[in-house]
Amino acid sequence: MDVKATISSVKGFKVAGVHAGLKADGALDFSLVFSEKSCAAAGVFTTNHMKAAPVLVDMQKIAENPTGIRAVAINTKCANACTGQQGLENANKMALSTANVLGVTEDSVLVMSTGVIGTQLNMEKIHNGINLAANALGDDWQSAALGIMTTDTRPKLASLTVATAQGTYNIAGIAKGAGMIAPNMATMLSTVVTDAAISPEQLAAALKLATKVSFNRVVVDGDMSTNDTVLALANGASGVEVTESLYADFVAALTAVCTKLAKDVVRDGEGVTKFITLRVHGAATDEIAHQIANTVATSPLVKTAFYGGDANWGRIIAAAGRAGVEIQADKTTLHIKVGESDSLTDDAGLLLFENEMPTNYDESVALDIMQAPSITVTLKCGDGTGAALVWTCDLSHDYVSINGHYRT
Amino acid sequence: MDVKATISSVKGFKVAGVHAGLKADGALDFSLVFSEKSCAAAGVFTTNHMKAAPVLVDMQKIAENPTGIRAVAINTKCANACTGQQGLENANKMALSTANVLGVTEDSVLVMSTGVIGTQLNMEKIHNGINLAANALGDDWQSAALGIMTTDTRPKLASLTVATAQGTYNIAGIAKGAGMIAPNMATMLSTVVTDAAISPEQLAAALKLATKVSFNRVVVDGDMSTNDTVLALANGASGVEVTESLYADFVAALTAVCTKLAKDVVRDGEGVTKFITLRVHGAATDEIAHQIANTVATSPLVKTAFYGGDANWGRIIAAAGRAGVEIQADKTTLHIKVGESDSLTDDAGLLLFENEMPTNYDESVALDIMQAPSITVTLKCGDGTGAALVWTCDLSHDYVSINGHYRT
Repeated sequence: MDVKATISSVKGFKVAGVHAGLKADGALDFSLVFSEKSCAAAGVFTTNHMKAAPVLVDMQKIAENPTGIRAVAINTKCANACTGQQGLENANKMALSTANVLGVTEDSVLVMSTGVIGTQLNMEKIHNGINLAANALGDDWQSAALGIMTTDTRPKLASLTVATAQGTYNIAGIAKGAGMIAPNMATMLSTVVTDAAISPEQLAAALKLATKVSFNRVVVDGDMSTNDTVLALANGASGVEVTESLYADFVAALTAVCTKLAKDVVRDGEGVTKFITLRVHGAATDEIAHQIANTVATSPLVKTAFYGGDANWGRIIAAAGRAGVEIQADKTTLHIKVGESDSLTDDAGLLLFENEMPTNYDESVALDIMQAPSITVTLKCGDGTGAALVWTCDLSHDYVSINGHYRT
Repeated sequence: MDVKATISSVKGFKVAGVHAGLKADGALDFSLVFSEKSCAAAGVFTTNHMKAAPVLVDMQKIAENPTGIRAVAINTKCANACTGQQGLENANKMALSTANVLGVTEDSVLVMSTGVIGTQLNMEKIHNGINLAANALGDDWQSAALGIMTTDTRPKLASLTVATAQGTYNIAGIAKGAGMIAPNMATMLSTVVTDAAISPEQLAAALKLATKVSFNRVVVDGDMSTNDTVLALANGASGVEVTESLYADFVAALTAVCTKLAKDVVRDGEGVTKFITLRVHGAATDEIAHQIANTVATSPLVKTAFYGGDANWGRIIAAAGRAGVEIQADKTTLHIKVGESDSLTDDAGLLLFENEMPTNYDESVALDIMQAPSITVTLKCGDGTGAALVWTCDLSHDYVSINGHYRT
């Protein structure tokens, strides 16, 4: 599907990204997504036990008002997490203030926050942002994507137009990146909107399917930040209704948009120099394959080896071995190749390891592959049918620099 | 207990560390520990599914000949892991060759290897090391400790003399370090010897108790390298027999020696600039406390914050929240203080977090604590009785440098 990295317009949606005064350098730091019509809404939220205030607020609002959402207000610099009762009050005030300025009901506004944990929102600047953004509403999605960035180096946008017998509809989304891609490390926020009409139940089901093979390939269940949130809003302004016969296409389109955003999050991870597709198959179950993939993908030894451009298959095999699940050592193979992949079973590439030991591979060929900016690693760990794919990255000096001094 | 960082002599044991030609720079790279009398032996081995050949060999020998062990031969530069059938044959050859040179039976020699995974042992150099070491046997424990180092920057030795009514006995050990302390990252080898007499069953039980609160506080179950091994040998040459009444003291002494070595491993981790004692208590069970402690201790965001000297309690709380176990957010508190600790329940220090939000702590006091080379972090996460203590470290630029280019 032809997913664009820009967003021209999604019917009935207006957005803005403004400088509310949260970022010291004058950069855009506050965004607003507004729908002229009520939206069906769905969300996928962090499973962290320490959920941030905006996460708690949004979970409740979507549960109570799944067809009446009108806006999402998003601030940077402060995650409004670990902020106690006052944090919850501030999140609600942020929604109320947005509702008042936009002339909609309080229960129709969702909020998102990203930034430092444990600091209270500067409500004066938040109110400033709300006013500025409400006055700037339009089609400037680029600014909206810029206004939610923290340590991201570039905005992340994706859009797709889908043709149906009823006419066309659009799906578009913006996202801000995690720190290191590795699942568990920082806040990932995304808002995806569509001008198709769909029930909140179907939207929730579609979002669940889409995130499973997109954001959840970089943000793993049970391993998320206090704030991670993906919101989906559908306002029906295109006039196209996602009927049963159009549902599969809708899921595919939503998945394509989410996949583009998820990969962008990895590519723009803090200090990232390499994009790694890690494919595990041959496991007893998908869950086991996922556990192996996550263990390998989060191993600092594996990540630094990728940074160094070293075909250090030993660290990959050793990480797989300590994943806490059974692997069939005698049936384990490891391939590497240049480029990325979405397939769960492809084994193509240079064979580095089989029969419990390295092959006589050509080291110079391996090094050439490891120097590429995008590498696919395929680990077969038995003759089972379980498979998993994760997108991950290397661990660089810059990652340490960024995170060694982020808060100060 | 007065644990020394040197080893003068342990009756009936002779050791050597030599340059077998494995390291290119002429440094000591092969060590031998020899007992003039048969030893009771016990071992604690990696739980990694990809066990290295020497691990498999030692597990079998200790099972089959638990009272007849005479020597341990240890090489560096090659882990003999992921080396298939030939690796297993080489590990056995290394033991046989050592046995022949020492004039003991093949089943009385244990072997350890550390270094790169997936390369076969250079048997010519191994034989050279065995011959050189056998000829150099004596009391030079310093050289023996040097001869097992990989990326370690200093040798790790510990010894203790225990007085009993029967006379005195010695316990002494050498260890080589893991990469980053964080449990799962590299090979940790240790050989501990004593001239006390003890049954292999009691030695195994004592070693299990000792490792639980020493090496397992830095090297977590199910999360180890392909080679991690702790061996204990007891030859009885002191004439002191560890009777039932002396057993508790023996366990305490063994624990003290292992604790000294385990902490040294952390302190000398790759690129380490800070030693962190992480204490979790108030959890429902010890296991839950341990899981929280491990999640926090392995979080790159937490580790880089320590490196940066930033009192970023938010990352600690967020990591605890994603540990996959229940925590009582409203009863969670976080303290930091200067120095290390062995206590499971001490809460002393600067209170950073309670009532689901940060306290009004003095930032300059917090920064002063975070600048210290040794910091104790205490996370209380409820009102349960479960507790865990782990020793960990920061994640620095040097760690990335060392591991980005280790193999080449």
